[in-house]
Amino acid sequence: MVISLCYILITISSSSQDNKKNLIQYVQPQIGLNNKGNVIPGPSLPFGMVKLGPDCVGGSNSGYISGERIKGFSHIHVSGTGGGAKYGNVTVAPLVGTLNINDYASYGINEIVQPGYYSVKLDKWNIQAELTTTHSCGFHKYTFPKSDSSYLLIDAGSFLDYAGNRTEVQFFVGSEIEIVTPTLIEGYTRIRNGWGKGDAYTVYFSAELDTPADEFGTWKSGLINPNSKYEADTGEKTGAFLKFQTHADQSLKIKVGISFLGRLKARVNREKEIPDWNFEAIKDQARSKWNNVIGRVSVEGGSDELKTMFYTALYHSMLMPTDRTGENPKWIPNGPYYDDYYAIWDTYRTTNPLLTLINPDKQIDFIRSLIDICEYEGYMPDARSGNDNGRTQGGSNCDILIADAFVKGLEGIDYEKAYLAMVKNAEVPPGGNEQKEGRGGLINYNALGYVSSDYERAGSRTLEYAYCDYAIATVAQGLGKTADYEKYKKRANNWLNLWRPVEDHGAKGFIWPKNADGSWDESYDMFQKIGYWTEFFYESHTWEYSFYVPHDMKKLIEMCGGEKEFVKRLDTFFNESFYNVNNEPGFLTPCLYIYAGRPEKTAERIQKIINENYNTSRSGLPGNDDSGAMSAWFAFHAMGFFPVAGQDLYLIGSPKFEETTIQLGNGATFKIIARNTSEANIYVQSAQLNGKPFNQAWFRHTDIKNGAVLELVMGEKPSEWGTDKLPPSMSDL
Amino acid sequence: MVISLCYILITISSSSQDNKKNLIQYVQPQIGLNNKGNVIPGPSLPFGMVKLGPDCVGGSNSGYISGERIKGFSHIHVSGTGGGAKYGNVTVAPLVGTLNINDYASYGINEIVQPGYYSVKLDKWNIQAELTTTHSCGFHKYTFPKSDSSYLLIDAGSFLDYAGNRTEVQFFVGSEIEIVTPTLIEGYTRIRNGWGKGDAYTVYFSAELDTPADEFGTWKSGLINPNSKYEADTGEKTGAFLKFQTHADQSLKIKVGISFLGRLKARVNREKEIPDWNFEAIKDQARSKWNNVIGRVSVEGGSDELKTMFYTALYHSMLMPTDRTGENPKWIPNGPYYDDYYAIWDTYRTTNPLLTLINPDKQIDFIRSLIDICEYEGYMPDARSGNDNGRTQGGSNCDILIADAFVKGLEGIDYEKAYLAMVKNAEVPPGGNEQKEGRGGLINYNALGYVSSDYERAGSRTLEYAYCDYAIATVAQGLGKTADYEKYKKRANNWLNLWRPVEDHGAKGFIWPKNADGSWDESYDMFQKIGYWTEFFYESHTWEYSFYVPHDMKKLIEMCGGEKEFVKRLDTFFNESFYNVNNEPGFLTPCLYIYAGRPEKTAERIQKIINENYNTSRSGLPGNDDSGAMSAWFAFHAMGFFPVAGQDLYLIGSPKFEETTIQLGNGATFKIIARNTSEANIYVQSAQLNGKPFNQAWFRHTDIKNGAVLELVMGEKPSEWGTDKLPPSMSDL
Repeated sequence: MVISLCYILITISSSSQDNKKNLIQYVQPQIGLNNKGNVIPGPSLPFGMVKLGPDCVGGSNSGYISGERIKGFSHIHVSGTGGGAKYGNVTVAPLVGTLNINDYASYGINEIVQPGYYSVKLDKWNIQAELTTTHSCGFHKYTFPKSDSSYLLIDAGSFLDYAGNRTEVQFFVGSEIEIVTPTLIEGYTRIRNGWGKGDAYTVYFSAELDTPADEFGTWKSGLINPNSKYEADTGEKTGAFLKFQTHADQSLKIKVGISFLGRLKARVNREKEIPDWNFEAIKDQARSKWNNVIGRVSVEGGSDELKTMFYTALYHSMLMPTDRTGENPKWIPNGPYYDDYYAIWDTYRTTNPLLTLINPDKQIDFIRSLIDICEYEGYMPDARSGNDNGRTQGGSNCDILIADAFVKGLEGIDYEKAYLAMVKNAEVPPGGNEQKEGRGGLINYNALGYVSSDYERAGSRTLEYAYCDYAIATVAQGLGKTADYEKYKKRANNWLNLWRPVEDHGAKGFIWPKNADGSWDESYDMFQKIGYWTEFFYESHTWEYSFYVPHDMKKLIEMCGGEKEFVKRLDTFFNESFYNVNNEPGFLTPCLYIYAGRPEKTAERIQKIINENYNTSRSGLPGNDDSGAMSAWFAFHAMGFFPVAGQDLYLIGSPKFEETTIQLGNGATFKIIARNTSEANIYVQSAQLNGKPFNQAWFRHTDIKNGAVLELVMGEKPSEWGTDKLPPSMSDL
Repeated sequence: MVISLCYILITISSSSQDNKKNLIQYVQPQIGLNNKGNVIPGPSLPFGMVKLGPDCVGGSNSGYISGERIKGFSHIHVSGTGGGAKYGNVTVAPLVGTLNINDYASYGINEIVQPGYYSVKLDKWNIQAELTTTHSCGFHKYTFPKSDSSYLLIDAGSFLDYAGNRTEVQFFVGSEIEIVTPTLIEGYTRIRNGWGKGDAYTVYFSAELDTPADEFGTWKSGLINPNSKYEADTGEKTGAFLKFQTHADQSLKIKVGISFLGRLKARVNREKEIPDWNFEAIKDQARSKWNNVIGRVSVEGGSDELKTMFYTALYHSMLMPTDRTGENPKWIPNGPYYDDYYAIWDTYRTTNPLLTLINPDKQIDFIRSLIDICEYEGYMPDARSGNDNGRTQGGSNCDILIADAFVKGLEGIDYEKAYLAMVKNAEVPPGGNEQKEGRGGLINYNALGYVSSDYERAGSRTLEYAYCDYAIATVAQGLGKTADYEKYKKRANNWLNLWRPVEDHGAKGFIWPKNADGSWDESYDMFQKIGYWTEFFYESHTWEYSFYVPHDMKKLIEMCGGEKEFVKRLDTFFNESFYNVNNEPGFLTPCLYIYAGRPEKTAERIQKIINENYNTSRSGLPGNDDSGAMSAWFAFHAMGFFPVAGQDLYLIGSPKFEETTIQLGNGATFKIIARNTSEANIYVQSAQLNGKPFNQAWFRHTDIKNGAVLELVMGEKPSEWGTDKLPPSMSDL
């Protein structure tokens, strides 16, 4: 006890170190630009409302395509998403020569991609473009050649029209633009649909130039109106052009305030956040904010490449959701307001638990916002963008966020209110709005104990509803609602209703479609096909989803024929390439060996997965970053542990750094020491927690939240460590 | 045949007459200002977007209370509604003396209330206020006394906060205001909830003054900022004040353009619709538009009082819905766009059939808008306001509008698309959104054949769903969908599942709550209590709703014990005051005698109801005008017939005018002649349709739509006319 206290004191005393280190040197936002990573190259603050960046010919989710011609620089983006594109609003583009508002794209050269700063030379125009941001504003600097006809275009009609999915394409609704003075241009863009299939959203802007335009005019639906001062909204695309005489290397600067409320709010955002014309100061401020926030984790040892991957992962994990506090056009929230997370299905496993560790105030605010949304719109979202809920992919996964926050003791959340919102998910069917909110097929699930194959995504829904029900049971227990606890704990067993003792590749027992009458549905190709919206499993197949019982691995292992059979099944899963590295349902699977007393196999799998899929190149992420979910997966494993989201539980893997120190946000730190770690020494030989022997491959958040030191001794051979005392399961209760 | 053709030719040739008559002399918008009529006193065009008028201290649905102090004049209202108030946005108010933005209300004297014009002297300030409108703009003229401190206030934070129902109160979301120049003030108000509990709506405005202000400033949350030019949106109420030196009788004029899209659209609306400062011209234009539209019906005979009641009823029937074509901020509609109808439950019985007769293009546009809304938002609305669906009271009554249009041959509607929307109502449950769209309790209804008493409004829902199913069957049949026709025709019998042979006041058989297990629910007070949202019947009781089987009166009469018993039951209903004159479920009931071969009793009841409840005073409507539903009920009966909405069927009552000529919108006219009609001569003795003997008390729309003359000979005693050939019922099929 004395030793333990002593360790806590030490860790607390060192908690404020490291923030002055230059850590953003390690952030390379270009990691994940290619290979469908879909991250954004342009500047943003952490959780920033404005994410300014290039939009390219051809179209993509982020707007950007490496090597493609740049059409201009728009202010709103999301990072790492799949499906249909969203945003791409309020575009600024420079050009010289003859004004052509329909084709002004240029290849970019000498691109610089840094946190808080993006620069590119637009080759066709010989114009250097530089961008930085504050929370709500874009700051552009364009260095022109000598020309009598240099132009800046402000396009109030732009949006990303890339449709990864036919039903998720964005549609234009309207726009207006006004050249208030030769240095002040204001207006809005209104767009609907896109990912989530949400209602129309409106992006208002107020742009100020440092140089009055010599000539100007507007356009509507591609038709230029010279000298016109404004275009009202008639459901058509509008824009403004500003003409200048420039001498060689003359810079024009433009500050664009953005608001989701109104034009004057956009103006005030600009005036408050960027009061003068000092581009470098704003850029430095952005970089400093990033340095502070990623500096909450400091690491020792590990290559520069590893540090680059790690700090970039932290960076990617804090681009989304968007902090829109003070910018909700639908109601006045009771507290913070967040938008642009799609979906919690993606992020609850890694991004959100990472925030809980290194930025808990943001996670608390985010959850408060979910509860507030439920209060005003009826349900907590699984996904939200453009101020609208949708598109629910799996379960009501916000339930897991609530349970995760509850068991980890996050304060400042009204858990009674949150609990009502969880119960609504479990009890009130969303009817025809099941892609927008709530649980689709709920009546069927609650009546039968499974979603029958009459409904789409019946398999993934049943499994996810079961785990969400466990999350409800968890909070019910904590709030002393005993009857509810028993009720939802029982429902958490519902996955068993779809367990069928069929065999494939030597494994017996799989989740299988069942008809409403209780008979098995034989009409699906269960072992080969990866489903999508309308099939049995969402983005997955039965090999992957039959591992998804995070609350009762003990029972699952029993159903699979015991530990030995289970380990064999896991080996088959990875060896036969049934594992899909770039998809969330498999995020926890490499760690499942730990539940069968084989932590060394987890260490091996993770090492292999990282080496084969993560690096510092533009293709350095295995697929869609999914609001930082992929990046956060890596970040956890680099630190040497992984969360079982929704439970007070982390599983220990194999740290990449000799020492990792996490500032936990409450003044305390959690330090992970991995003695002798190396590419070869991936196996834990022994461990101590706060100086006491620690012979298990898992720990609780409540063990470390007030400060702790976990010391692991690594070696090149598997050991007996962690093979005996297994992580908890619902069946143990 | 020759005679008939001849009549048609005659009626066509006279179709364009009468439009030049001064008919608006008969329109007195003050009818229904009191006695909860809730109509609006201020000016509007037919279906006008701007309904400008006084808002009074104390609060009401229309903003107005006779004799109360006037707080100012706001631009958006709805007419005749109940429940929670909606709108009351963008208020202009004049005052003189010390600026006090918190209390500037004044009693009004010398009020003039006319179509297209409102005038009042604000007694406290000695200011004459005059108002007129175009479709999208308010035009104000304020005549001031001599003063060094005359003020105009523009309040961007105003809204009606009257809550007829606690959950339907409006909430403030945000506002902005900018004094662009001393004669140009622009901004917006954003409000949510109110009747229908809809999402936030935004009203943008652009106000121009004819006189530059000497001084000006803004306010936010009640705090004045002198000389400030703008207030951005921080979720607080904002406004602007403009100060003038006025000489005696100096008029200040202000034109306020409104838009639901944006500030510049509001500006353009103003500039287009009111290009100069001629108040009288705009007022004359408004009056002329009203004269044209009510002039589609011309009458001969009848007192001036009767004509006043009649033309005011036509006026009231064309205030709502609001034509918002070109003003939809959510998507670009495929055609017209209408808002502000709550609910179709109120209007499908009278207002909409009246439009179908005298303004069919509007009814077609309205239905096209419903189908368009379904395409973009998932369901056709039963009610809509502030660009959001809700709050569904009874069935999916838009189904009845579609059937009504279909059987009456309205062209330009995509009935295949409409049919899909109807079937969605009948098949896809709205889940937790049952007050917003679709049919609540649908799963239960479709499984059991009735809504069990586990659900609110189980009785009215079952009856209305049955009739809506009949409407679907009607369209299915017409589109050749035989299987669907049979399916929904069968469902149209579902009212029988709640028929219980209990007795009350000598009548046997009533609609009764039933449990899901088939047993009767004894827990309701069925004969006394009028229900509301959460009870068995919506706004009614079983005496009234047990008459609601408009598609199968023959079967209902049989269930009631035959014609004699049925007539006795009707007599009891009226004599015992079970009839509720101011509520829609009873609209058809006075006509039901006709189904039992007793048209003379219908004539008597209608005479009595009109004499006791309708007059030309401010209390001249029996209750909420309900978007003109009460007024249209009167208008039909004054003309001498009444529609059975959803069917190709009108029932003949007792005309008040000697001759009524309706321009049917297709160049043809329908003329009703009632020879010898008087207060005493209310009974039809004999009839001719197009010159041929016509011995039935009903006719079809398809009989008259290409022009017809219905000639009735009236007398003071009941006759045998109409007692034999009864109107059609589903059981006849």
